[in-house]
Amino acid sequence: MPQQALSTRAGAQSGPLAEAFDEVRAASMALAEGLSDADATVQSMEDASPAKWHLAHVTWFFERFVLKPHLKGYDGFSDDFDYLFNSYYDAVGDRHPRPRRGMLTRPRLNEVMAYRTHVDAGMRTLLDGDISDDLAALITLGLHHEEQHQELFLTDILHLFAQNPLKPAFRPSEPRLMQQPASPLAWQRFEGGLIETGHEDDGRFAFDCEGPRHKVWLEPFALANRAVTNGEWIAFIEEGGYERPDHWLSDGWATCQAEGWKAPLYWRKEKGEWWTMTLRGWQPVDPEAPVCHVSHYEADAYASWAGARLPAEAEWELAARGHPLAGNDAGTGRLSPAPQTGGGLAGLFGDVWEWTRSAYSPYPGFRAAEGAVGEYNGKFMSGQMVLRGGSCATPPGHIRGTYRNFFHPGKRWQFSGLRLARDV
Amino acid sequence: MPQQALSTRAGAQSGPLAEAFDEVRAASMALAEGLSDADATVQSMEDASPAKWHLAHVTWFFERFVLKPHLKGYDGFSDDFDYLFNSYYDAVGDRHPRPRRGMLTRPRLNEVMAYRTHVDAGMRTLLDGDISDDLAALITLGLHHEEQHQELFLTDILHLFAQNPLKPAFRPSEPRLMQQPASPLAWQRFEGGLIETGHEDDGRFAFDCEGPRHKVWLEPFALANRAVTNGEWIAFIEEGGYERPDHWLSDGWATCQAEGWKAPLYWRKEKGEWWTMTLRGWQPVDPEAPVCHVSHYEADAYASWAGARLPAEAEWELAARGHPLAGNDAGTGRLSPAPQTGGGLAGLFGDVWEWTRSAYSPYPGFRAAEGAVGEYNGKFMSGQMVLRGGSCATPPGHIRGTYRNFFHPGKRWQFSGLRLARDV
Amino acid sequence: MPQQALSTRAGAQSGPLAEAFDEVRAASMALAEGLSDADATVQSMEDASPAKWHLAHVTWFFERFVLKPHLKGYDGFSDDFDYLFNSYYDAVGDRHPRPRRGMLTRPRLNEVMAYRTHVDAGMRTLLDGDISDDLAALITLGLHHEEQHQELFLTDILHLFAQNPLKPAFRPSEPRLMQQPASPLAWQRFEGGLIETGHEDDGRFAFDCEGPRHKVWLEPFALANRAVTNGEWIAFIEEGGYERPDHWLSDGWATCQAEGWKAPLYWRKEKGEWWTMTLRGWQPVDPEAPVCHVSHYEADAYASWAGARLPAEAEWELAARGHPLAGNDAGTGRLSPAPQTGGGLAGLFGDVWEWTRSAYSPYPGFRAAEGAVGEYNGKFMSGQMVLRGGSCATPPGHIRGTYRNFFHPGKRWQFSGLRLARDV
Amino acid sequence: MPQQALSTRAGAQSGPLAEAFDEVRAASMALAEGLSDADATVQSMEDASPAKWHLAHVTWFFERFVLKPHLKGYDGFSDDFDYLFNSYYDAVGDRHPRPRRGMLTRPRLNEVMAYRTHVDAGMRTLLDGDISDDLAALITLGLHHEEQHQELFLTDILHLFAQNPLKPAFRPSEPRLMQQPASPLAWQRFEGGLIETGHEDDGRFAFDCEGPRHKVWLEPFALANRAVTNGEWIAFIEEGGYERPDHWLSDGWATCQAEGWKAPLYWRKEKGEWWTMTLRGWQPVDPEAPVCHVSHYEADAYASWAGARLPAEAEWELAARGHPLAGNDAGTGRLSPAPQTGGGLAGLFGDVWEWTRSAYSPYPGFRAAEGAVGEYNGKFMSGQMVLRGGSCATPPGHIRGTYRNFFHPGKRWQFSGLRLARDV
Repeated sequence: MPQQALSTRAGAQSGPLAEAFDEVRAASMALAEGLSDADATVQSMEDASPAKWHLAHVTWFFERFVLKPHLKGYDGFSDDFDYLFNSYYDAVGDRHPRPRRGMLTRPRLNEVMAYRTHVDAGMRTLLDGDISDDLAALITLGLHHEEQHQELFLTDILHLFAQNPLKPAFRPSEPRLMQQPASPLAWQRFEGGLIETGHEDDGRFAFDCEGPRHKVWLEPFALANRAVTNGEWIAFIEEGGYERPDHWLSDGWATCQAEGWKAPLYWRKEKGEWWTMTLRGWQPVDPEAPVCHVSHYEADAYASWAGARLPAEAEWELAARGHPLAGNDAGTGRLSPAPQTGGGLAGLFGDVWEWTRSAYSPYPGFRAAEGAVGEYNGKFMSGQMVLRGGSCATPPGHIRGTYRNFFHPGKRWQFSGLRLARDV
Repeated sequence: MPQQALSTRAGAQSGPLAEAFDEVRAASMALAEGLSDADATVQSMEDASPAKWHLAHVTWFFERFVLKPHLKGYDGFSDDFDYLFNSYYDAVGDRHPRPRRGMLTRPRLNEVMAYRTHVDAGMRTLLDGDISDDLAALITLGLHHEEQHQELFLTDILHLFAQNPLKPAFRPSEPRLMQQPASPLAWQRFEGGLIETGHEDDGRFAFDCEGPRHKVWLEPFALANRAVTNGEWIAFIEEGGYERPDHWLSDGWATCQAEGWKAPLYWRKEKGEWWTMTLRGWQPVDPEAPVCHVSHYEADAYASWAGARLPAEAEWELAARGHPLAGNDAGTGRLSPAPQTGGGLAGLFGDVWEWTRSAYSPYPGFRAAEGAVGEYNGKFMSGQMVLRGGSCATPPGHIRGTYRNFFHPGKRWQFSGLRLARDV
Repeated sequence: MPQQALSTRAGAQSGPLAEAFDEVRAASMALAEGLSDADATVQSMEDASPAKWHLAHVTWFFERFVLKPHLKGYDGFSDDFDYLFNSYYDAVGDRHPRPRRGMLTRPRLNEVMAYRTHVDAGMRTLLDGDISDDLAALITLGLHHEEQHQELFLTDILHLFAQNPLKPAFRPSEPRLMQQPASPLAWQRFEGGLIETGHEDDGRFAFDCEGPRHKVWLEPFALANRAVTNGEWIAFIEEGGYERPDHWLSDGWATCQAEGWKAPLYWRKEKGEWWTMTLRGWQPVDPEAPVCHVSHYEADAYASWAGARLPAEAEWELAARGHPLAGNDAGTGRLSPAPQTGGGLAGLFGDVWEWTRSAYSPYPGFRAAEGAVGEYNGKFMSGQMVLRGGSCATPPGHIRGTYRNFFHPGKRWQFSGLRLARDV
Repeated sequence: MPQQALSTRAGAQSGPLAEAFDEVRAASMALAEGLSDADATVQSMEDASPAKWHLAHVTWFFERFVLKPHLKGYDGFSDDFDYLFNSYYDAVGDRHPRPRRGMLTRPRLNEVMAYRTHVDAGMRTLLDGDISDDLAALITLGLHHEEQHQELFLTDILHLFAQNPLKPAFRPSEPRLMQQPASPLAWQRFEGGLIETGHEDDGRFAFDCEGPRHKVWLEPFALANRAVTNGEWIAFIEEGGYERPDHWLSDGWATCQAEGWKAPLYWRKEKGEWWTMTLRGWQPVDPEAPVCHVSHYEADAYASWAGARLPAEAEWELAARGHPLAGNDAGTGRLSPAPQTGGGLAGLFGDVWEWTRSAYSPYPGFRAAEGAVGEYNGKFMSGQMVLRGGSCATPPGHIRGTYRNFFHPGKRWQFSGLRLARDV
């Protein structure tokens, strides 16, 4: 889904919006291929949700916010589903508690598929008619919401399969290609100054938290030409990075100790070599590829150890300006980070989400939307850190230069890595 | 499986043993009917195991302890399964941690079924040949082991379904029959004295913990003619049974407070009437049926409140002597406790496991068997309380007068109730 | 306080009772010597209570149960104290939560001492008058209650001081005497049969749980001539006793793993030698002295490893019959277990409480007393194991052959060890 | 201690520095007056430290960082103290674990006082000699460090006394003055623009995290003329502020639910009126005084409910520029927030720390100092929120316009309140 399409989606004509709808909904179905009912049901930890839940919840969004209020005569699929598949929208009623999402062996996966079909039919009826700008915007939001859950679907299924001693592969393993070396580390300088950052209100879609566009002052800084690699991370491990508190934030070291971190999530050393769990099963760690599945705490400690720091999100956004929104995203089908090569700033988009030093806070002038949809982003603006650039699990077309992803600093199950910055 | 059959099982001829094998294995398959892959995979709490795990683990017993050592040329189904489906037999190798049994979406249910078929084939080959007495005894143990897991299969699937707001029924609900009144409470007196208790070593099968037969001295006592009913329990609730510590054991009251108990597990009051989750779905509580899903702590508090006490296990066993091993067990298909009517001691076998006041301890002279099979019972003789008599979920033929079931006193997900006793 | 005195205490004449009162109360004061306000205030874990709390709570018993109902015109010391120093007597009103006992920096230690003085004065007035048999029995109970807390005072202060890296000594360290070797292990045989056990209702004091006297049948057994020594325990450690589950109860092994046990509580290896915390500070472990500060789980595992078992409490009581109630109790002032030497059964009383295999259950015919005092023992009859014989911290005169001490099987901060038994 | 004095402290002449040293050290001693050994020893929760620990730890700073490296022939007081009273300086060696600070009944309070005397003597010797600029800066840091702990001493002793049902008063209660009404709420407008913020490197003392001075762009905003009052907070409570998630951050609502918040910390309703624990004991809540002991989560929810927001820290600092560093700080002796009256921005300094919307992050160009002292602030820059302006427990002279205090957003035991801001 190219950025071009996104811009039209928000328009009043239903044609391209209907196409976008079909495309996004089909992409979710494609993800579910090959999963058993059980694969789609089990919740491997509180942070993760079952695949079935993702498939149903994004559908619930369209039924609850679009069809019920806007499609005359629409017949709801099931009252139970309304309760089961609400997520954090406290305003629209009770909901099934998050940590218990994995108890729902019923409805079965095929019933969830029937729910999708039912809602898709309703949506097509709606999309055949006149769609107001507001409604188009709401549907577009629903599509981006579904794309977000497509990435979570992948991170969550990886986490589930990683719990299984059989290490099942979500997608078949491929012959390992000749290893490609990452570009040598280099720094690109930026002058900063009084710049503008955040989403410009130009009719293109963005999440509310990406705006309003606003001024910030930046001192000169430099950004690394690529993300930190697995090979570099192994050096950090070998020099005692996980054994001494020197470079760690206080909360970070406490978490590292409490959870017994010794390496990125999913890594294990076998006969002297590091291996890791991937969406294509159990694989050797590629030293040239960007390190992945590290927390903000680890990223910060690494940066400090390397004599650098994490970028501020406005720095990252400034540096990314003008770069094509292309990279190793879920559209390449690789499903794991690839070595970043070539000149300039490589790999800004795709491969791994890059932790920034910025807490996820409201931009000056930010106001949450009214009503339940307003619960979308604002209420998470506490205790979480911003990540930028998308990953190998991000749907193509979903990323933007202004896109703000956010997770708590101790979380590691996302496709999260880092790119160094420094003052100059 | 009548007691008669059991006695022959331990014999050297393979015929009846092979029949018993087929019967027990088929009964497990019958339980799995109607379960989805997801139903069979999810673990609803640490105490419970997934249905798939039960089906595989009982099979693992035959492969690991019978086929591998005793069937020449037997080809193991899978090394992975050996690891995944070991339970508490520490002596035979590493095992998948119990609280993570629900992560195993793979192998799928149909692969577990293939495992069963493979092992069944091996067992039939073995059973066609000469079977030593020792081997026959081991196979018989495996069958009783599988029957134990058949009951756990039911208690665990009920617990899982009870977590689901949709309250799915394991078996279809049946038209509610005309309510049958329980017998009025009456007491039967026993003189006690120096008696013998425990399993007599007569060649019939019993678990090791049921013996050795030994002498105990009992003072005169009386036993209630039937189990405590739901109606009686409701009176206990209404008189503040769950609100005041007066009649509770200290650990019991602490648990009651910590877990917020207000009624038996699965009960909820809706519009002034108590309802409960059953294997046939969400049902009104029948005041005449025995109370079920209460912990030892609750049972003890009730008994104290009622001016009585729980029976010692030797008292129970003495009282049950000579009673036919018949009752509302899983063979009746009711799958919930039924009102206990008629004269004498009603409902000793079936309906609900009856908590005793006896800690699960080794009988005088008890010695665990050598080797891994010796882990069977002895190592659980700490912190658990004995229950007697079987339940509506106990396979027919599985119960004995000397049978000692045991659970920690705070557990409620078994079909556990109580029968009062008192000194006379 | 010889047993003789105890028997007269329960009599109607106040003379000996008043003397006993003075003696016991003075013993508590002696314990408090040398403790700072802070030492007496801090609670080192939930299981332990501050010294100040012990001193106040035993006083509260006399105020609440004796003076307020029985001394006309008695003026309560403080309503606050009534709330603060109630322990588990739920029936007499709200109480300060146990885990928060260490928050009470006020009242100060000297105010608690004033409370003691006030209550002592009241008690002396009362004891000068006529005392009914019932009242004498109640006061006697209060004295034994205070003696129990004298032992807990010692175990709790040891636990507190053991948390302090400075390893302060409760009482001054003494020059280490020439090491005395323990008697070589030998077995004494008992024939068992139908015996009577438990406290005989002969007017002498005993706690309610020690009776009623009742018949039990015992098979022949043998008891070790002395407790297991530290040296023997070191062999257990060195042969992997804490590293393999083979000999452990299932709950025991889980606790051992969860708490990371590698040796008895308070032990640490320094330069190849085992040291331990004692009431006389940090000391080398004496290989000839009885092992101490082991849980029931460890004791059971050791016994199994040694090819023996723990004694049943009735066996222990039978064996101890006729032995003088003398030994290394708190009256010797040693305050740690001493090597057990000499012929016959050595060290039955004093040194270490000896874990039995018996769960703490009501004896046949046991009934808790009516009212709050009835909360004394009965409600703890769940999940705990019986210990016999007293320890080096037990007040002289407090122990009896029928005495049943009880703790949860995972607890280690009492002066608890073991003596082996076996079937013969 | 006026700001003037602070500026001279950092100078090379020891005279004023010695005076400042004496003043600050004496202030700590004054705080300890009236505390018992026990009061000074107990740790009421992990976040808090015992008074004795505060008194020793600030002394340890001078011994460890000043005397040992810089006073020739200085004789350390005790190796044990070096271990016991290190706090978070991982670089200088092992330390006693924070949650176990309350186990240290030894050393006694008077030994800690002797430690203070010993170190004070050493410091005076040192201060009588030549002091390099660097050393003067280090000593000055030590004094500010001690002042920080003086405030924590008060917050922690309040927390301890609040756990005690006797509700002891740290300082005597005073006759309640005639209630003074707070100023009516009004807004003061600021234009913002490209401003400079943070500490100017002018030789005056500031903590490292207050700089470097740097440019930020601010949009126009308005700030409330005073802090939110208790009366306003009661309205929030009464309109269901703690009962509905509408205005809460997601993490905030989860915390509110998990901890059962219904009002600010220490509040309880008695006979329809709100009371609260204060350093002067149990007192009625004054509706005109600023609300205190609220978390960032509560402050944020209140601001949202009130249609406003919390100020950014740069906004607050801009608004406070030019205001005298005077207010109801610990120097007034009131020890609780007072109604804020008068024109302009009242109560910016003193009364309550004001939560901002700003995460505690490094300012652009920030670098932690080298060595152990570098652990001072930088490593806490994660997961915490900035508070500004000092409180009624802040030592006089300690506050600055650039001062950044920081706590995790769920903490409530500091003297923390809020002042509203809004976009204009």
